[in-house]
Amino acid sequence: MKNTILLPQLIEMLSKGNREGLKDFCETRHPAEIAELLSSLTPEDAWAVLKNTGYPLRSEIFSRLYENLQVEIIGTLKRNDIVKLITDMPPDERADLFKLLPEDKQRAVLPALAQAEREDIRRLTSYEEGTAGAVMTSDYATLPPSVTAAEAIEYLRTAAPDKETIYYSYVLDSNRKLIGYVSLKDLIIADRNEIVSNIMERELIFARVDEDQEEAARKIQKYELIALPVVNKDGVLVGIITHDDAMDILMQENTEDMEKFMAITGTHEAAMYLKTSVWDHFKNRAGWVVILAALGLISGAIVEGFSELLIQFSILATFMPMLADTGGNTGSQSATLVVRALALNEIKPQDVFRVLLKEVKVASLLALLLAVLAVGRVVLLESGAVVPMGYSIWRIAIAIAIAFGLQVVTATLIGALLPLAAAKLKFDPAVVASPALTTLVDITGLLIYFSTAKLMLGI
Amino acid sequence: MKNTILLPQLIEMLSKGNREGLKDFCETRHPAEIAELLSSLTPEDAWAVLKNTGYPLRSEIFSRLYENLQVEIIGTLKRNDIVKLITDMPPDERADLFKLLPEDKQRAVLPALAQAEREDIRRLTSYEEGTAGAVMTSDYATLPPSVTAAEAIEYLRTAAPDKETIYYSYVLDSNRKLIGYVSLKDLIIADRNEIVSNIMERELIFARVDEDQEEAARKIQKYELIALPVVNKDGVLVGIITHDDAMDILMQENTEDMEKFMAITGTHEAAMYLKTSVWDHFKNRAGWVVILAALGLISGAIVEGFSELLIQFSILATFMPMLADTGGNTGSQSATLVVRALALNEIKPQDVFRVLLKEVKVASLLALLLAVLAVGRVVLLESGAVVPMGYSIWRIAIAIAIAFGLQVVTATLIGALLPLAAAKLKFDPAVVASPALTTLVDITGLLIYFSTAKLMLGI
Repeated sequence: MKNTILLPQLIEMLSKGNREGLKDFCETRHPAEIAELLSSLTPEDAWAVLKNTGYPLRSEIFSRLYENLQVEIIGTLKRNDIVKLITDMPPDERADLFKLLPEDKQRAVLPALAQAEREDIRRLTSYEEGTAGAVMTSDYATLPPSVTAAEAIEYLRTAAPDKETIYYSYVLDSNRKLIGYVSLKDLIIADRNEIVSNIMERELIFARVDEDQEEAARKIQKYELIALPVVNKDGVLVGIITHDDAMDILMQENTEDMEKFMAITGTHEAAMYLKTSVWDHFKNRAGWVVILAALGLISGAIVEGFSELLIQFSILATFMPMLADTGGNTGSQSATLVVRALALNEIKPQDVFRVLLKEVKVASLLALLLAVLAVGRVVLLESGAVVPMGYSIWRIAIAIAIAFGLQVVTATLIGALLPLAAAKLKFDPAVVASPALTTLVDITGLLIYFSTAKLMLGI
Repeated sequence: MKNTILLPQLIEMLSKGNREGLKDFCETRHPAEIAELLSSLTPEDAWAVLKNTGYPLRSEIFSRLYENLQVEIIGTLKRNDIVKLITDMPPDERADLFKLLPEDKQRAVLPALAQAEREDIRRLTSYEEGTAGAVMTSDYATLPPSVTAAEAIEYLRTAAPDKETIYYSYVLDSNRKLIGYVSLKDLIIADRNEIVSNIMERELIFARVDEDQEEAARKIQKYELIALPVVNKDGVLVGIITHDDAMDILMQENTEDMEKFMAITGTHEAAMYLKTSVWDHFKNRAGWVVILAALGLISGAIVEGFSELLIQFSILATFMPMLADTGGNTGSQSATLVVRALALNEIKPQDVFRVLLKEVKVASLLALLLAVLAVGRVVLLESGAVVPMGYSIWRIAIAIAIAFGLQVVTATLIGALLPLAAAKLKFDPAVVASPALTTLVDITGLLIYFSTAKLMLGI
């Protein structure tokens, strides 16, 4: 809603070159809001707005733009502007941006940065994508164990402007090994002369630098932390992950899980649907679509194989799409629930029997309901249908109902089992894409359907 | 991993009645971890562990149990134990629990609580589920605008133990109207004698008490807040939502979105997959399954209607399941991307033309790819198939390929359009469940397929 009022206002000030107005506009609003507005502009216009603001606000707004826009803006700037802009960025955002810059830009900018920033970028960009190391920041507050609460607060007071958070301080020994942490709350409550090692929390929750980013983010959620320390294999503190980054990580992982589950590959960067090129969209979708289309031919072959049965009992063809749909739906439902329950740590692969027991019961109820509906439907609406001599409509109805019931139970169990098996084999459960499942239970469903019909009708 | 070591240890201490051991076990670990372990026990055993710990730790662990277990434990306790247990709970968790207690328990417990707690429960339980009011807590720190930074810190020092967070203090005027907030960081950096109204941030980000909980949680994410103030219609501060609750809300909403999208109704409470009864699972799934099974009959009727064509060109039947699957898959893919992009505010309903343009391009590429595959498949593998006199295999192949292409484009566009239309009509885009979409594009797909075949083959 706000965009429809603020964006035209911003664009008008831009076209009139109202520099004072633009400066004021940026300074009186939250950087996140300005960044959202700038996302609708061209890189040139976004920069025309940004350059009216001073530092560090300029870097703060810039850091919140989506990454592609950051890269595009950098592409239009002179080296000096780039250096000033990125020097004031939060270290983690800066490292992320750096990874996306073309190599010649990187080579041009690096030597112009101060030694400390250069080192910092080198270090933060050295961790593999998707690890805790790749999302951590290096602006954290540390304390030696021997200072008093009052000294600690006095130190934080001066250090605060440069730190991502001062609400947790990490206590390091002389080898920079993490030995505890103390919250600003505890420092304030404590006696002024109490020393930090007596106040600090020693029961440490931390992530290893090569740990999966999602696991690290889940620790922040589970333990309700403002920040999580990240240590290397020697226990030395190398960074922290903040609660806001954890939230972004979990949301991105959720989206990727859902996309994977719907047979879309690739990663999901923030704000990228419209920015992703047609070709990338195509590549992310084509793989599964082609594989599943090929698998669909197996279903086709089964239908072909039973064509004589179909010609004899043409009523069976009418219920074929309904059977395929129902199998796909019930299988996808159980798969969705199991994938989600696994993602949220509600169940573990070893719970397989409890899950199957639950799903068998639910599936039996669904099977019963659908079987009753199928019998009703056949008897009521197909009583005038052409039925081969010697077969009552009831017999056919019951054959169809049994096939339906079996299909629902089979599909539900396959849907629940596959993600559990994937998790057991240390794959992401969401690789069991729902469309793949649908195609698979199409095949099992048709086999069940025609076999049951043949058996029941004694052909 | 940890559970497999710690849980047996806990159970052994329980069976031996090792009260000292249990006390120590609980006191040296994070409450979140103890709560996770207790979730595997019966209510009686969980209580047998809990009662060895003192207050407030006992309430702290209890607050982190999943809600059903909380209710079950309460059911086994005497009134006095209940009163002590819930008096020390965080107000928001306590109110949530209270809503779930049977009415007779509520009536028994309420009079035994202190006046302040009683009022607090009444107030917090009065807001509608799903609103900011229903998830906020009432333990926040407030300051008058006229005190100095030093006085404010001194006040927070004494108030801290009772507050959910002291990192933000909310500044109220004499009518308890919210006029600003100040972070503990800013209080510490500021000159001791500076008054709060000169330090505080006046550009307020807040939620209204009747605002959707997801909207409120998204503000915490967007503005990277530790807590978000909640005000009533007069601008009076009535509560805060903390960052950890916001994370839980967003994760729950994501799960519900995904379940809704996979045709599962109902809400998703934390840790509930195994705890949800078979009957509730059944109810959450049966609705859509039955509706879609009924719709599947339309597809059946279409197949029946074209049965003469199918008998004449039996090759068409082989490609039918492949066509239906491909339509369902491409439609679900575009729907997933659009639903997710809408949920993450990457696109708005008014972007419909930009989305359609993108999807038309992506779909055309997919259509081309599949059409080529279909022609190849038909010509290569069906060259020996029985083809009615006068029809070349190429003519049939091209007819099938064109039908495939049309189906992919149609399904992709329907998949993208429906969630946008739902959003425009102020429905949740995820109501366009993927299975429903699959069933719908089955119908359109079969119509396209048979019509194209008839036209191309000149029947």
